[in-house]
Amino acid sequence: MSELTLKGQQAKAAALVLSQAKAKVKNEALQALSVSLIANTTMILEANEKDLATAAENGIRDAMLDRLRLTPERIVDIAEGVKQVATLADPIGEVTHMWKNEAELTIGKQRVPLGVIGIIYESRPNVTVDAAVLCFKTGNATILRGGSEAFHSNLALVRVIRDSLASSGFPADAVQIVEDTSRETAQQLMKLNAYLDVLIPRGSARLIQTVLEKATVPVIETGTGNCHVYIDSEARQDMATKIIVNAKASRPSVCNAAETLLIHEAVAHEFLPSIIAQLRAENVEIRGDELVASIVSDVILATELDWETEYADYILAIKVVSGTDAAIAHINKYGTKHSEAIVTDNYFTSQKFLQQVDAAAVYVNASTRFTDGFEFGFGAEIGISTQKLHARGPMGLNELTSTKYIIYGEGQIRE
Amino acid sequence: MSELTLKGQQAKAAALVLSQAKAKVKNEALQALSVSLIANTTMILEANEKDLATAAENGIRDAMLDRLRLTPERIVDIAEGVKQVATLADPIGEVTHMWKNEAELTIGKQRVPLGVIGIIYESRPNVTVDAAVLCFKTGNATILRGGSEAFHSNLALVRVIRDSLASSGFPADAVQIVEDTSRETAQQLMKLNAYLDVLIPRGSARLIQTVLEKATVPVIETGTGNCHVYIDSEARQDMATKIIVNAKASRPSVCNAAETLLIHEAVAHEFLPSIIAQLRAENVEIRGDELVASIVSDVILATELDWETEYADYILAIKVVSGTDAAIAHINKYGTKHSEAIVTDNYFTSQKFLQQVDAAAVYVNASTRFTDGFEFGFGAEIGISTQKLHARGPMGLNELTSTKYIIYGEGQIRE
Repeated sequence: MSELTLKGQQAKAAALVLSQAKAKVKNEALQALSVSLIANTTMILEANEKDLATAAENGIRDAMLDRLRLTPERIVDIAEGVKQVATLADPIGEVTHMWKNEAELTIGKQRVPLGVIGIIYESRPNVTVDAAVLCFKTGNATILRGGSEAFHSNLALVRVIRDSLASSGFPADAVQIVEDTSRETAQQLMKLNAYLDVLIPRGSARLIQTVLEKATVPVIETGTGNCHVYIDSEARQDMATKIIVNAKASRPSVCNAAETLLIHEAVAHEFLPSIIAQLRAENVEIRGDELVASIVSDVILATELDWETEYADYILAIKVVSGTDAAIAHINKYGTKHSEAIVTDNYFTSQKFLQQVDAAAVYVNASTRFTDGFEFGFGAEIGISTQKLHARGPMGLNELTSTKYIIYGEGQIRE
Repeated sequence: MSELTLKGQQAKAAALVLSQAKAKVKNEALQALSVSLIANTTMILEANEKDLATAAENGIRDAMLDRLRLTPERIVDIAEGVKQVATLADPIGEVTHMWKNEAELTIGKQRVPLGVIGIIYESRPNVTVDAAVLCFKTGNATILRGGSEAFHSNLALVRVIRDSLASSGFPADAVQIVEDTSRETAQQLMKLNAYLDVLIPRGSARLIQTVLEKATVPVIETGTGNCHVYIDSEARQDMATKIIVNAKASRPSVCNAAETLLIHEAVAHEFLPSIIAQLRAENVEIRGDELVASIVSDVILATELDWETEYADYILAIKVVSGTDAAIAHINKYGTKHSEAIVTDNYFTSQKFLQQVDAAAVYVNASTRFTDGFEFGFGAEIGISTQKLHARGPMGLNELTSTKYIIYGEGQIRE
């Protein structure tokens, strides 16, 4: 039997137990896990050292090394995160709607776990704990497949999780990790329909694309964000400036950062010099169309490629548009349906933008950076869905659930 | 440009228009379409005659011919169905939940169309109108790909739909049909990620399996139902008999019909002779385990294959089980997570069954045959989902929608 078939079977058995677990018992197990993580800091850091050494040998760049690195402080943060998940309300069992049908059956729609969730991810070992804990809280078993560069760290973390869950009376197989990090096994995981109910990729656009192409298991697509801020002719200059600087420069590497600024031609001359100056003060490189280049000096001319690109870096494309319709058309053409913002004082313009822009989150007079499970108040986030099925936008605990209909009858048969 | 690329682009353009259409205008267009269908009866029946002639030449069996056949009465039924969809509430635009987050942003979760929906289906031409109309009502553009055996019928129906929608001021490309019915084009459709937001297969288990394996577009799996009725030791004999006879024999070809009866050993001797007699009076063939064969004569011995099979026919497998736990274990092993029923007077047994059986619809003291969008009161049905993502169980209009977050700010930026 292959590693995945065995792990699939074990996960399915564990999922059945988890689906029936009481919220209180799950939360106590999470609290205990939080303590365990701290208690095992030395072991975890030793494992992480191995990964860091290998990465350094392989000449991995510093930013990547930093994503890979665990420290006592980071382990405290991770443990703190586990505790917080324990305090969230358990969505499982909630009957969101209950009614009588014509046959006098009482039909309830109840939240249940999805079952077995596969997570394919890269580099950051904190995802290991994060994903496992959110799936556990929602009664799902997890099969993790992390990147080979974090192999020892992930293994150590999963050992702590499994031991701790077992001590709390849960099946250790509630959380498993694929130990064979070959590409072949990853592709097997993508086709493990007999055991997986859903597969969530977290990582680079390339990883997500591969999963979308190869997987036969239902996938939730997460992550890529080519987000825009549109400054309307009726925008306040100070608000517009604050929003685009925040959306671009507060954390350019994340998916909810802005990549292109669209600005109404009526205010381009007035606003752009100061906006660009403030962006440059934050080390943002400007790539603009010809009009932008005619207004401000030292602007690199943008090409078609710039409108399509998620830089995830200190680079911003700027385009002058003739109005809201042109801005919406540009966004619906080049955007990745993630987060889009308009800055305007005009009521009808704001409504048009909200209605016509096709994206997971559409903002009026706020930064795109708010698209996040914690900022939205979900208390957790397993990723940001950019597809339209099942979940769209930040995914919290509810998005890790399915439903079933429970039906109370008195002997009814269908005529 | 291939047929599908062109149709994909046209569908996307139409979807943008549809997403902004007012409920009243959409409903008027549906009422007009209902009239058009009747007015075009002769043309539609002529096209249907061609398909029937080809099918007869190819020696298609009568049941299939009947599924393919249109009559004036059936067209009236189809037109009536369109009218009914017009009277349903439009889910688009509904804000299901709205709240303030810590940053004082007002965040609303709003129902929006999915976008472009692909439907792959077989034989029955009424699916053409049904699917197109439900997608239109929910603001989605549709690309239909029917079976080659219904080619002329589907083409005629789509012509009526497109002409009628165009007369009502909508883009005709709101509804398109793939005219190249080759397998290659079907497989292209399954990978048309650039234009399709979701693909729904409707038809045989084989069709659905192919779509699941080949598609890179998100799929909603529908249909297969290996459903069970479990008669507990504390069941009333008359109620149990009525329910299993209805679940099996009222319409064996549909997915919510029962395929296996599980019966508690404590009542097997008492109940089975009469239950089996009544099933046989309905022409149901019985395949039982050894215990069943020892109680009733002329029982064909069931094999492992019988527990796995969706007969979709006048055949029922019967197994005697030691109790509720064994029944639940059997169902969770062999069931297709569609519809499952228990007959019992015992409160705790009923609760256990509801909680532990993993299926889209779990019934206490009612027939599995109620799993249906109309019976559930949704007023429509695009199919019955047997997957856990996005939608589970009967899918009505709500299940043809996605959501977006609309966020009202006052200049907020993320700290």
